[in-house]
Amino acid sequence: MTASSIFGGSEAARLGVLGAGQLGRMLALAAHPLDIECIFLDPAESACAVDVGKRLRAEFDDTKVLQSLAAACPVVTLEFENVPAATLDALSAHTTVWPPQQALAVAQDRLLEKQLFQRLGIPVGPFATIDGPQDFSAAVDAVGLPAILKSRRMGYDGKGQAMVERAEELPQAWQTIGEAPAVLEGRISLQREISMIAVRAQDGEMRFYDASENLHRNGMLVRAQPRPDEALAAAARSHTGAVMEALGYVGVMAFEFFVGPDEQLLANEIAPRVHNSGHWTIEGAHCSQFENHIRAVTGLPLGDTGTRGACVMINLIGRVPERRAVMGVPGAHLHHYGKAPRPGRKVGHITLTAADMAALKENEAAVLALLRGSTGNHAD
Amino acid sequence: MTASSIFGGSEAARLGVLGAGQLGRMLALAAHPLDIECIFLDPAESACAVDVGKRLRAEFDDTKVLQSLAAACPVVTLEFENVPAATLDALSAHTTVWPPQQALAVAQDRLLEKQLFQRLGIPVGPFATIDGPQDFSAAVDAVGLPAILKSRRMGYDGKGQAMVERAEELPQAWQTIGEAPAVLEGRISLQREISMIAVRAQDGEMRFYDASENLHRNGMLVRAQPRPDEALAAAARSHTGAVMEALGYVGVMAFEFFVGPDEQLLANEIAPRVHNSGHWTIEGAHCSQFENHIRAVTGLPLGDTGTRGACVMINLIGRVPERRAVMGVPGAHLHHYGKAPRPGRKVGHITLTAADMAALKENEAAVLALLRGSTGNHAD
Repeated sequence: MTASSIFGGSEAARLGVLGAGQLGRMLALAAHPLDIECIFLDPAESACAVDVGKRLRAEFDDTKVLQSLAAACPVVTLEFENVPAATLDALSAHTTVWPPQQALAVAQDRLLEKQLFQRLGIPVGPFATIDGPQDFSAAVDAVGLPAILKSRRMGYDGKGQAMVERAEELPQAWQTIGEAPAVLEGRISLQREISMIAVRAQDGEMRFYDASENLHRNGMLVRAQPRPDEALAAAARSHTGAVMEALGYVGVMAFEFFVGPDEQLLANEIAPRVHNSGHWTIEGAHCSQFENHIRAVTGLPLGDTGTRGACVMINLIGRVPERRAVMGVPGAHLHHYGKAPRPGRKVGHITLTAADMAALKENEAAVLALLRGSTGNHAD
Repeated sequence: MTASSIFGGSEAARLGVLGAGQLGRMLALAAHPLDIECIFLDPAESACAVDVGKRLRAEFDDTKVLQSLAAACPVVTLEFENVPAATLDALSAHTTVWPPQQALAVAQDRLLEKQLFQRLGIPVGPFATIDGPQDFSAAVDAVGLPAILKSRRMGYDGKGQAMVERAEELPQAWQTIGEAPAVLEGRISLQREISMIAVRAQDGEMRFYDASENLHRNGMLVRAQPRPDEALAAAARSHTGAVMEALGYVGVMAFEFFVGPDEQLLANEIAPRVHNSGHWTIEGAHCSQFENHIRAVTGLPLGDTGTRGACVMINLIGRVPERRAVMGVPGAHLHHYGKAPRPGRKVGHITLTAADMAALKENEAAVLALLRGSTGNHAD
């Protein structure tokens, strides 16, 4: 068995996955038809990927369990980016881990991430480093107000962030984010947000999906739609490719961008994993982001990232509405994550497919009518 | 909880499935995104659906296990048609079983099946009943030679059949099929074979996929392709709908037809389940036959049966070829059933999707080149 492939013979292959949430669940659903079994490592009591794969329940620093996982799996990957470096070190000593550790190091730290973007000539908005109260004043001077204070590490879905409208609010914001090393980001005139989902193989081949136009509410993604005619897609591909090459990346990566009023891209952040804004690729592309991630990390050839017809993805936040109503909308594909309902929790998504944009729009209106009042995140 | 739906509240629902082969595996993969868990009953040591669902390992006449299955599952369905009537009786006493028992009774007996077709005015080829040697001579007189002797019950994929070229071969053919009650079918001038995959809901609504053009080798399906322009589709829909209504059918049913030289349909047989010739619906239709079967039997609204672009399904028989080569063909979707290789065994299928028929043809040629010599079933 070579390092480049997990397929030694005719036997089923095993892929280790750190984390066992909905992304892991959808990875496993894509892996089964390839005869690849996912083995998850996750300490959480409820981990919705366990319905579709084996799970080792242990903390990420459990050396013994990490050794078992490495022994069982010729390749280990992950479905969330905040894996401790020590975990990756322990695994890397015994097996192959994709994406590479430096991709996680960058994605885990907003400062390193912005510095990488700058080094690669990718435009970023104004920002300043804040290591403590001594930096407050210079940071405000540098980026202006209003601004957003974000902890450098462990930011996810709006957590670890605080708005700063006036300079005197900074101490409170600093407390809110846990007095951790942070960056202060100047507010940018944001028109819209797009993301580029891409995949890079072990031999360096890269493929890109159509740019996704994303809508957020309360810091969470609520809607994503492929935009085959996206004028900025070429720049997004170029930036995404540059980051993947710089990091020696293998697997699927998402790059989120702000689009300014001048229709210029500003880098927001990367996610070194399959991404919510790429869920439409399950039905909307020839080969989904989940299958392409598995293909890349296991050494299989990349699949076709081309878009198939019109589609839109709508997140289900808080709870899944009555199945019969949602599934009665033409072209509705329900993806229920099997998670208990909880306010603000991503519990599923719906992808709508249709022959054309007019039909799609009508069907989306029907879904949104069903969701209104149900999740509270789809007001329009 | 009503009889018409398995969704009592917000909890995950459970669907019982008799049989745990590849059809069960693909049912379970379609069920997970709907938060429906499949619980299989199958006595076989190797049952490839166990990777994606729970399995009760017991014989189909194990009353105790049947009671457990019925207690756990508000609806039970099946993935193969030769379920003993006593099994269905035992289950029906405690839970809902779809499709209905009479559909299985008809599908299990070639004579009852042909009689139903005749009663509904659906053309069938010449046939005669053979209950023993006393019927040989009259049967040959009635249908002519050459002919095919088929046992009335338990016929599947070319088993239980024997060719009869001359009258004196009939005793040998009779032995070959186990001296069981049979029908002798006159050979028809067969130009091609099509099937109609359809789904019927509990409220009687019916939806039909595009007709599938099917190619068989050695009595096994090797290739299936949707034919949106199939001139005979209207007749196939009409016949399929008539059978489903006559049987009070709920779920997905397949109806296989011969197409004669005069472009007339002749009924071959029905399968009261998801069907190999409908596997292309996973990528090639908005809602797959697997999801639509689950929707129908669990009381959810039916999904869109419309075709999405060009596609073709190619069976993998005997063994799955080297994954890397097959998956390198553009638009190739591998469906590996996780079964051990064995000559003549269906171990997987590949569906090719493409933007147009020209690209599809080229990619199919590439797959067939890889399969040639590998399975021995794809000579052209």
